[in-house]
Amino acid sequence: MKTQADAGGLFAPERVAVVGATDREGSIGRAIVENLADFDGDVVAVNPGRESVLGYDCYPDLGEAPAVDLAVVVVPPSIVVDAVRDAGKAGVNNVVVITAGFSETGGEGAERERDLVDVAEEYDLNLVGPNSLGVLSTPTGLNATFGPSNALPGNLSFMSQSGAFITAVLDWANDQGIGFKDVASLGNKAVLGETDFMRAWGDDPDTNVILGYLEGIDDGREFIDAAREVTDETPAVVVKSGRTEAGAQAASSHTGTIAGSEAAYEAGFQQAGVVRAENVQELFDFARALDGLPMPDSENVAVVTNAGGPGVMATDAVGDSRLSMASFEDDTLDELRGSMPDEANVYNPVDVIGDADLDRFRSALDTVLADDNVGCALVLSAPTAVIDYEELGEVVVDLQAKHDKPVVTCLMGGERTDRAADVLRAAGIPNYFDPARAIGSLDALAVQREVQSREYEAPTDFDVDRDAAREILEDAADRGATRLGVEAMELLDAYGIPTPDGEVVDDPADARWVANDIDGDVVMKIVSPDILHKSDIGGVKVGVSDEEVADAYEDLVTRAKNYQPDATILGVQVQEMVDVDAGTETILGMNRDPQFGPLLLFGLGGIFVEILEDTSVRVAPVSDREAGEMIDELDSAPLLRGARGRDPADEDAITESVQRLSQLVTDFPAILELDVNPLLATSDGATALDVRLTIDPEEL
Amino acid sequence: MKTQADAGGLFAPERVAVVGATDREGSIGRAIVENLADFDGDVVAVNPGRESVLGYDCYPDLGEAPAVDLAVVVVPPSIVVDAVRDAGKAGVNNVVVITAGFSETGGEGAERERDLVDVAEEYDLNLVGPNSLGVLSTPTGLNATFGPSNALPGNLSFMSQSGAFITAVLDWANDQGIGFKDVASLGNKAVLGETDFMRAWGDDPDTNVILGYLEGIDDGREFIDAAREVTDETPAVVVKSGRTEAGAQAASSHTGTIAGSEAAYEAGFQQAGVVRAENVQELFDFARALDGLPMPDSENVAVVTNAGGPGVMATDAVGDSRLSMASFEDDTLDELRGSMPDEANVYNPVDVIGDADLDRFRSALDTVLADDNVGCALVLSAPTAVIDYEELGEVVVDLQAKHDKPVVTCLMGGERTDRAADVLRAAGIPNYFDPARAIGSLDALAVQREVQSREYEAPTDFDVDRDAAREILEDAADRGATRLGVEAMELLDAYGIPTPDGEVVDDPADARWVANDIDGDVVMKIVSPDILHKSDIGGVKVGVSDEEVADAYEDLVTRAKNYQPDATILGVQVQEMVDVDAGTETILGMNRDPQFGPLLLFGLGGIFVEILEDTSVRVAPVSDREAGEMIDELDSAPLLRGARGRDPADEDAITESVQRLSQLVTDFPAILELDVNPLLATSDGATALDVRLTIDPEEL
Repeated sequence: MKTQADAGGLFAPERVAVVGATDREGSIGRAIVENLADFDGDVVAVNPGRESVLGYDCYPDLGEAPAVDLAVVVVPPSIVVDAVRDAGKAGVNNVVVITAGFSETGGEGAERERDLVDVAEEYDLNLVGPNSLGVLSTPTGLNATFGPSNALPGNLSFMSQSGAFITAVLDWANDQGIGFKDVASLGNKAVLGETDFMRAWGDDPDTNVILGYLEGIDDGREFIDAAREVTDETPAVVVKSGRTEAGAQAASSHTGTIAGSEAAYEAGFQQAGVVRAENVQELFDFARALDGLPMPDSENVAVVTNAGGPGVMATDAVGDSRLSMASFEDDTLDELRGSMPDEANVYNPVDVIGDADLDRFRSALDTVLADDNVGCALVLSAPTAVIDYEELGEVVVDLQAKHDKPVVTCLMGGERTDRAADVLRAAGIPNYFDPARAIGSLDALAVQREVQSREYEAPTDFDVDRDAAREILEDAADRGATRLGVEAMELLDAYGIPTPDGEVVDDPADARWVANDIDGDVVMKIVSPDILHKSDIGGVKVGVSDEEVADAYEDLVTRAKNYQPDATILGVQVQEMVDVDAGTETILGMNRDPQFGPLLLFGLGGIFVEILEDTSVRVAPVSDREAGEMIDELDSAPLLRGARGRDPADEDAITESVQRLSQLVTDFPAILELDVNPLLATSDGATALDVRLTIDPEEL
Repeated sequence: MKTQADAGGLFAPERVAVVGATDREGSIGRAIVENLADFDGDVVAVNPGRESVLGYDCYPDLGEAPAVDLAVVVVPPSIVVDAVRDAGKAGVNNVVVITAGFSETGGEGAERERDLVDVAEEYDLNLVGPNSLGVLSTPTGLNATFGPSNALPGNLSFMSQSGAFITAVLDWANDQGIGFKDVASLGNKAVLGETDFMRAWGDDPDTNVILGYLEGIDDGREFIDAAREVTDETPAVVVKSGRTEAGAQAASSHTGTIAGSEAAYEAGFQQAGVVRAENVQELFDFARALDGLPMPDSENVAVVTNAGGPGVMATDAVGDSRLSMASFEDDTLDELRGSMPDEANVYNPVDVIGDADLDRFRSALDTVLADDNVGCALVLSAPTAVIDYEELGEVVVDLQAKHDKPVVTCLMGGERTDRAADVLRAAGIPNYFDPARAIGSLDALAVQREVQSREYEAPTDFDVDRDAAREILEDAADRGATRLGVEAMELLDAYGIPTPDGEVVDDPADARWVANDIDGDVVMKIVSPDILHKSDIGGVKVGVSDEEVADAYEDLVTRAKNYQPDATILGVQVQEMVDVDAGTETILGMNRDPQFGPLLLFGLGGIFVEILEDTSVRVAPVSDREAGEMIDELDSAPLLRGARGRDPADEDAITESVQRLSQLVTDFPAILELDVNPLLATSDGATALDVRLTIDPEEL
């Protein structure tokens, strides 16, 4: 796969060739040629069997055609690779392969797809597909798809892993008056994928919002890095399907996508600044709001309504969202009182009551939008004899422009809302029947506002002993170990994650030396990769005094050998006694997701992780802010923060441990899984009491 | 309020009088007369100043008019009570008071409303309002509202606490082709309320689904009892607004409704069998599905699609719901394989692929609907050249009728879906663009299926010592106590909730007697309503041997007196030592909700209730099934069920304690709040270790 492909070039060709163009009725080759009728540039056909196709000049191959910027390939699967090679030879940069019958069919098709990738790499091609519906771009009238609908012009750019979904969306969007800048059907993503289009549209001044329907992401880390740069300015809204277990199974059988874990996607999109939509309705509700409305200054909503009941519904929706109902300044309340009858309610939601005419609505909305406490507004109206919706729509458009704050509307009703909705739509303002959807749109703005306000700090580069860590891992690899236990505590030491005093020793005298250096009694544990449950065989001794250490050493080794004569015994760990009751046991873990790489997990130990599943996840490496969010997200966070008379834990110490582990697992892809369990969080630190990890020596 | 008002009579009058009828332009009195133009029965006007109104005969008062079944009152607020009295005297049974200016305005208006209630009671009137938009009923063309729209005929009956919401809904529903049987604007609910309409529509053969927009429920227990009888046959879907804190505040300032707690509503609707909608969209999505579709036999969904991506989205939506993806029988798979091309996917979601024609769709849907594992189905289609949506709609209608299983559709697209949607709508089948909404509709059917499958068992009537309980409460009341502690353990004993051996005694000799009867050492606690934190003043002694009991008694009393010389000391509790580590501490509590009465709460103790808010709530009295659900609902339930190597708790003992407490608080409204904390759940029982309660002596 290309790492820095320029997907943007696909959408602004001057001359397009349809390779496999034909005038055969019902064929895809014909459908594409027909769809190119409105293209502002040149169209040429390539087909050795024809001299012209539907009026376009036809050439036997691309080498004989005039220079082309985009080749759309619709030839049979067996000759696709050759056709694409011809394109490469002819100096074409951008190729869309419509033809299906590649990796999605397995076996031979998958092999063909590998060949296709090789050719694309050889000629440095920006290749979409195979198995794509095509691409379109409205500014030049380019419709290089075989879909039944063209798109209206607009500023949404949309990528989809399902071509059928594009056909459905375009048909519907035309009806709704929703327009697009570019549309790309990703197909099998053999070369160009979601990250490439994210970058391209992030650089495109005509794309206001990036939309995606994705079933999987190929390289999660690359996606996060690219997307967070883009979303800092351009909102991206994505439906990731296969969210649920059932859905992931369905996605896998649909495109052969390996879904990766939902937790990884959730974390990855969060870190990438992508606004996640749960379903199609949210995808377009959010997109329209982000396209048409200015960013709010705050999350405080004002609701102006002529109907109390719907006002309450809107307030409930605010309560369900991250938004708050704005509290008005005294001046605002005074002004509202002055301009409205006594029965009106001047507090938020403002009820201008059923007999409100246009002036009263205008005055109330103007007043609340002028209030510095108000970040955005919802105008709600039930049909009454005194309100003309079209006029009310115009008032909303005017006042939104005047105050430059986002306003959405619920002008409730049937046909009578149509003309008002047109007026509002032209100004980028969505109108809904359901107050909950309107508030949901404002909520999406609040998410994007938070994304744009983030400072993306680089992960801290701690001063660690990477060589020591490498040595520990290599030693383990040398002895053929793939699962490591307490003998790897020094790995944590090397990365500055606090561990109790102590060492793994391999003779009784050393054990005494170590114990002497430790205040008070010690804990001693047999260290053997072959003995997983040490306590069960008497392989752990607590409260061992300095005098008892040597005997205890011998005893532990004897027990281990008795239990399993051929066990590899690495020695005995002699460790400071730690009072676990002096803190809260937490778990800090890592595993590798096939798409996103190292995933960090944090949670309180025991039932919190196992029964209540109260954990937080981030893709490593994490910044200090992201590590802090991992604590914030836990339902059980109050238990680390002094609830029920506990001492508050040292959160800085926890987040530092999280970041140091993040650095460790980023530095060493050989670490496949790692659990610090428990990481004991106390009021003045965080200490790793035990560790287990799995390594892949091949990756060292 | 009338307890068994017959709201049904309102909707089938033969002659309607408009009291306050007028032909003055823009007046409500005129709007109502105009809206009655299509009424099949007679209309008379009542207005002393006119001889006829808009062609209807006009009478000076109801006494002089011919006999009337329904009087719609629109006179000024000051003369409403007189007008209603006249109606009562004239033998009119049903009255709708449109006029506003009653309790919603407070003060004088509230007084006027009380007078109105008195008159309604005196004449046994079925009175809607005041402050109502009116009522309508489509079978007779009755539109006794002043709203701008009439309703299409249908089988939904709709009550709303917001008149404006009715005007918005009717306007919108006409556009959507959604029809109604009856509509009632509840207004201030001075006499008839939600429970009355629930009953009336439950008895109405023409009402298929009851819809409600409610901001509060006046008598929760009565509502539950009425609704559960109704919902066993007729589905009821309710939006209760004021769900959130912000929303509850807004509702309160809108109609003066005291919202009651959201937890109470959640429990109450669940127990009543009401399908709860979160927003307007769900209200009508659920209503349409419940109106038009047969009940499914199971919660297993089959999805048939020509588009993989939307199929995955639908599968995700199934994963989010209580539904499951159906697993097909082998015969079904064989048949699908036989009728579809190799590239099709015969597993659920069935992908008939993009080139599927009508026959392939028909065959696939027919096959999966015939499978006994399939309870319901979704047909999904993206627009293609080979599928005509109208024809596909007809196929769905036919096959749904043939198999009598609920089918919903997502024929995705814009205008091209319109005619198909009409065909489907006529057969009661909803069509959506978004697969998530389609699955949401099937989910509502699954909720209703569960409601209808419930056996409403009466709460168990345990053999308890009610007299003893009364005596304990009366003793407390006699000494002026409102807050009781361990001295009330006997209250639990009286209702058969196990407590440790022990007694409250008031001299050292008795203390010895009690201790002698108890095996092993005892716990002793000072008993005083004035000392809340006994431990803090040394008011608790654990591990007291028989020999030490008398001295301990004196010591406890001395400490208490030193701490607070004027404290009332009721004695000392001498109790068996209980090992709390031998079980799991749970909390069993009760408080009284203003609308629903006694609410029971159950959860695991400590952080589970306080930090994680993992509790379950039911309105008392509860049946055995409902008590069991209270355990099932807890996220922490596994901790009672043997997770992490614990002994499973005796759930029967817990549910019995829940039910016995339920009986206690139902028998004694004087108990305002009660907490058994902890109720120690062990493998062979549940024991109340401590109790606190608050009583209202007035209620005894």
